[in-house]
Amino acid sequence: MIKAGIVGGTGYTGVELLRLLAAHPEVELQVITSRSEAGTPVADMFPNLRGRVALSFSEPDVESLSQCDVVFYATPHGVAMNGAGELLERGVKVIDLGADFRIKDIPAWEQWYGMVHTTPGLVAEAVYGLPEMNREAIRQARLIACPGCYPTAVQLGFMPLLEQALVDKGRLIADAKSGVSGAGRKASVGTLLCEAGESMKAYAASGHRHLPEIRQGLTQMAGSEVGLTFVPHLTPMIRGLHATLYGTLTGDADLQALYEQRYEAEPFVDVMPAGAHPETRSVKGANQCRIAIHRPGGGDTVVVLSVIDNLVKGAAGQAVQNMNILFGLDEDAGLRTIALLP
Amino acid sequence: MIKAGIVGGTGYTGVELLRLLAAHPEVELQVITSRSEAGTPVADMFPNLRGRVALSFSEPDVESLSQCDVVFYATPHGVAMNGAGELLERGVKVIDLGADFRIKDIPAWEQWYGMVHTTPGLVAEAVYGLPEMNREAIRQARLIACPGCYPTAVQLGFMPLLEQALVDKGRLIADAKSGVSGAGRKASVGTLLCEAGESMKAYAASGHRHLPEIRQGLTQMAGSEVGLTFVPHLTPMIRGLHATLYGTLTGDADLQALYEQRYEAEPFVDVMPAGAHPETRSVKGANQCRIAIHRPGGGDTVVVLSVIDNLVKGAAGQAVQNMNILFGLDEDAGLRTIALLP
Amino acid sequence: MIKAGIVGGTGYTGVELLRLLAAHPEVELQVITSRSEAGTPVADMFPNLRGRVALSFSEPDVESLSQCDVVFYATPHGVAMNGAGELLERGVKVIDLGADFRIKDIPAWEQWYGMVHTTPGLVAEAVYGLPEMNREAIRQARLIACPGCYPTAVQLGFMPLLEQALVDKGRLIADAKSGVSGAGRKASVGTLLCEAGESMKAYAASGHRHLPEIRQGLTQMAGSEVGLTFVPHLTPMIRGLHATLYGTLTGDADLQALYEQRYEAEPFVDVMPAGAHPETRSVKGANQCRIAIHRPGGGDTVVVLSVIDNLVKGAAGQAVQNMNILFGLDEDAGLRTIALLP
Amino acid sequence: MIKAGIVGGTGYTGVELLRLLAAHPEVELQVITSRSEAGTPVADMFPNLRGRVALSFSEPDVESLSQCDVVFYATPHGVAMNGAGELLERGVKVIDLGADFRIKDIPAWEQWYGMVHTTPGLVAEAVYGLPEMNREAIRQARLIACPGCYPTAVQLGFMPLLEQALVDKGRLIADAKSGVSGAGRKASVGTLLCEAGESMKAYAASGHRHLPEIRQGLTQMAGSEVGLTFVPHLTPMIRGLHATLYGTLTGDADLQALYEQRYEAEPFVDVMPAGAHPETRSVKGANQCRIAIHRPGGGDTVVVLSVIDNLVKGAAGQAVQNMNILFGLDEDAGLRTIALLP
Repeated sequence: MIKAGIVGGTGYTGVELLRLLAAHPEVELQVITSRSEAGTPVADMFPNLRGRVALSFSEPDVESLSQCDVVFYATPHGVAMNGAGELLERGVKVIDLGADFRIKDIPAWEQWYGMVHTTPGLVAEAVYGLPEMNREAIRQARLIACPGCYPTAVQLGFMPLLEQALVDKGRLIADAKSGVSGAGRKASVGTLLCEAGESMKAYAASGHRHLPEIRQGLTQMAGSEVGLTFVPHLTPMIRGLHATLYGTLTGDADLQALYEQRYEAEPFVDVMPAGAHPETRSVKGANQCRIAIHRPGGGDTVVVLSVIDNLVKGAAGQAVQNMNILFGLDEDAGLRTIALLP
Repeated sequence: MIKAGIVGGTGYTGVELLRLLAAHPEVELQVITSRSEAGTPVADMFPNLRGRVALSFSEPDVESLSQCDVVFYATPHGVAMNGAGELLERGVKVIDLGADFRIKDIPAWEQWYGMVHTTPGLVAEAVYGLPEMNREAIRQARLIACPGCYPTAVQLGFMPLLEQALVDKGRLIADAKSGVSGAGRKASVGTLLCEAGESMKAYAASGHRHLPEIRQGLTQMAGSEVGLTFVPHLTPMIRGLHATLYGTLTGDADLQALYEQRYEAEPFVDVMPAGAHPETRSVKGANQCRIAIHRPGGGDTVVVLSVIDNLVKGAAGQAVQNMNILFGLDEDAGLRTIALLP
Repeated sequence: MIKAGIVGGTGYTGVELLRLLAAHPEVELQVITSRSEAGTPVADMFPNLRGRVALSFSEPDVESLSQCDVVFYATPHGVAMNGAGELLERGVKVIDLGADFRIKDIPAWEQWYGMVHTTPGLVAEAVYGLPEMNREAIRQARLIACPGCYPTAVQLGFMPLLEQALVDKGRLIADAKSGVSGAGRKASVGTLLCEAGESMKAYAASGHRHLPEIRQGLTQMAGSEVGLTFVPHLTPMIRGLHATLYGTLTGDADLQALYEQRYEAEPFVDVMPAGAHPETRSVKGANQCRIAIHRPGGGDTVVVLSVIDNLVKGAAGQAVQNMNILFGLDEDAGLRTIALLP
Repeated sequence: MIKAGIVGGTGYTGVELLRLLAAHPEVELQVITSRSEAGTPVADMFPNLRGRVALSFSEPDVESLSQCDVVFYATPHGVAMNGAGELLERGVKVIDLGADFRIKDIPAWEQWYGMVHTTPGLVAEAVYGLPEMNREAIRQARLIACPGCYPTAVQLGFMPLLEQALVDKGRLIADAKSGVSGAGRKASVGTLLCEAGESMKAYAASGHRHLPEIRQGLTQMAGSEVGLTFVPHLTPMIRGLHATLYGTLTGDADLQALYEQRYEAEPFVDVMPAGAHPETRSVKGANQCRIAIHRPGGGDTVVVLSVIDNLVKGAAGQAVQNMNILFGLDEDAGLRTIALLP
């Protein structure tokens, strides 16, 4: 059994990790820390875990965390970069669900996240945990930077097109719609049911923190710098993320076949039949990305529809998938849950 | 492996059964019938099942159904009563998620359901599938009548009080609130998002089909006829059922201890700590009933709060629980899913 | 034109007052105060008011408020009791949407609201602003205590029965379901879309602040002390309040006719036809209470269904109705808006 | 008073027209027809209208309709084209909320709507009722073709850019998100709360009926053929439509100033301050379009955010606005309702 710890488990990615790890056949939950909730039984905060998780939150503490084989950081940015190093030295694998190790360009990270990065060396070492792109590197890694939710859906959606150089990479558009859980479990007026319910809005249209992360990934796929416009939207639902991607085709290809081949061996990417429109609810609670490809009017614009559950394939599920790869388990161990529909 | 068939799998209890059975370690899905959808792959209708259920709907057919060890009816009332007999004769166990075998009083059933009952003999034989009440009988049964969603939450909530004769049984009140999935997956104006969303209403306040079923169960617990007022409400959410139960105490007792003892050994009934208020989301997708007991102002009115997921402990999950008992499996086999929160 | 001021307009009752008063033909909005938002244009906080309300929030200030004919307090409890006196002395009418002047029993108020009442004399003077009960007194008042949302729906629902002494007044039950806007517009985890959405729960089942207020009103109607069990529920919708009321009939009467006669002249209480089930959405945005009466199975239990928009007839609309009465305007001036459906 | 009739008032645009016309100071509702509901009081179907609309639905009948000054068609396509001619001949103005007269290119209409057009002559005569584009023509018209909901939001969003030839008109993208009421009030599985709730999906990504209508309008603004990719999405909310528009700038201009000037005199288009993100709820129930302009990273991609209430500025409100222009009333008569927030 793999002994797992979680730092900062009081948010939505935290409770989702708990749900997945508590049911994982090869994992034993060892410790979960929260400075503010130390002493509180986890199941008091998250009643869905009553009878399933007996742990209480404890003070963050290197000693107890270093008893684990793997530690997940489900913290706001700026926490993992200060704690990961010591754990790595003690031989603990670290999987960060936050943003600290995602962006290789340190000045860019510092600009978008508004703080000085304290451990740039770890950024250089960290492997970007998108298995469909970096599976081999993940297998060897000590430190994984899990992709953000938007970056997961957008990168999986564009990947086959960019790898094959089939679109104008200077003019990519990602119009993305996220459920409100993407904003986290913190008291705030903007995400109250009465504010975010029954309404739709864009936000950060002039620039969002996930933009440099997505651009970095797309650039890697394309082999050179891409131009991307990314507009996120807040959607009145709890879970789910829908990315609608637009590109201009520069070559000809059977796009349906291209996608099907590219993702044929991927356990968690489902290419839908031609003409389909994936619904976010078809992946609710599941570690799955579903993709469909359209070419309206047979013209040179390609439209890719890519959906995930932002808390699963966009966060906790992908983290577990990374752990499975890292420890040589079946990649879908603990991740076979079927989406809850309706 | 138990070979299972489903008759009428195109509704919400059908897809929920599929979700549970597809992940059940001891079950092999053999056949699923639907007259209207014969030939359609199940996963085309329910995309959450893509890659997990390879079956297509087939025409209802006794031959193929009788190859199964157990057949579930997830059909409107009036179907199972005509099909169950032949399957039972061929040695197939039958679990009906509908209403055909729930009510022992045939004239009452005929009045509430508006049709003649064709197989009253089977009603007499059927075991009412509320394991917390009838576990031993279920173990021996050939034919199980799964309780309705309201009846499950209301009966589990009142059971300890009635068994111990602690309330005035002539004046019970059940004010129940159900998510819209309780109304099924059929085209109808009243359950459109634009009609049922952002609104609350009572319905059938003067009499609902679940009333005689609940009354029958409560009467069995009490040992004599009970008086019950039952008012169901349509709540703007997909899943979840919250029953708020009112009774007048006739004796004194430590109600918290009473409930905890009564349900101590029950794997799927969770008595919350004193003062708690269970949320329906704490059981979303899980085969669980959570209960809390209040006594406002220390007076003689007891208020019981009882929540379930109407599609799981109120339908498909309970059906699987019955199957597990029937076949001598672990009672929670395939039912260990943790509720999806948020 | 009546010059109106609002103290504390940053919450939901505040913005609703603004919506109603901005469109009121006889009112000129003069001042709106908020300590925390002083200087912010109202329409920056509430974009629905862009182009319609030009005011900015200002610091609370007796001088500017005393230029008004009427001042509305849309503040948490404890504010109006300290400010109303000085305005009254200067001849300003005061309408409090909060709880400060609702409960005549000062020790009870202090117990439920957890603070010392600083102006009990004003409580004695204040008129409880339920027009259907106190219209004549409202006409003469200087200070109005607007009823809470639950108290409005529950009192209007029980009123005819209690006035005619037709129910056992020792054993009344009010099971009430409110939209989330009833909890106000403050940053809090419990009312996030991801916490309150897609879920139903009771709260304060052992005692809620509206209980003594409702009991006071019902006692006044009945002529002597009543016994009431009141259980509020949080419902996953923004607006709307549904009260389901239960009583035991002690006499016989044509209840439908009784209600129709009692409310015949009331502009804002609509008795639905026999057998109806009012939906909260039928009053969304409107100053309306709709009521239906049921007698399940023809027995001696009466079930009354009473719905309002908690922010309108349960708060801001009722405040404007009181203002209209107070100033001798048409009672429905500015209140003719039709509910928004769907 | 203008005598108004409605053909086909049982859908959401019908009830919305009723809400607006019942409160319109210059209109008298004369007749409302529905073949299926003839005889039913309107307020029985739409309880928000109880006490406000006394009419019953009647059989469609030219005689009674021709007593009106204006008749609104709130019908599926194919109805108005067969009825409008006779009313026009009798001197009745006709405003069609449906699609019959929107598209000048008859073969294109026939292809997208799947039927033969019976009155192409009326199409030629009809004025496209987007007041911000065609106000003068509307003033003179007999027959108005009200724009669809998507076309309203998209055309208002792109108009200033195309009129000034500031974008590459060959490569416009409109990613649009609509509330479910856009799909109408008909029994259908896809728009059930349990199907459309808590989920997001694109639909008709390869081609939607509003595409040729939008293209026609944009082409008129641009002076020559435009290239447009239009992808609509179903959003889990009742009302509201959010269009996110993308274009490539070909010239330089102060876009904020451009939009402000273009819409300065428009009563129902609100250009938000630079950097803003309009929410659909800010126009809920109001005849308003709110627009914001972004230029991410200062590059050559322009992003326009345009929101309306699909049932008001996208349907019934715009129809009333057209009526006001047609009859020389204040353009905002009956349309001053403030949006309902929250």
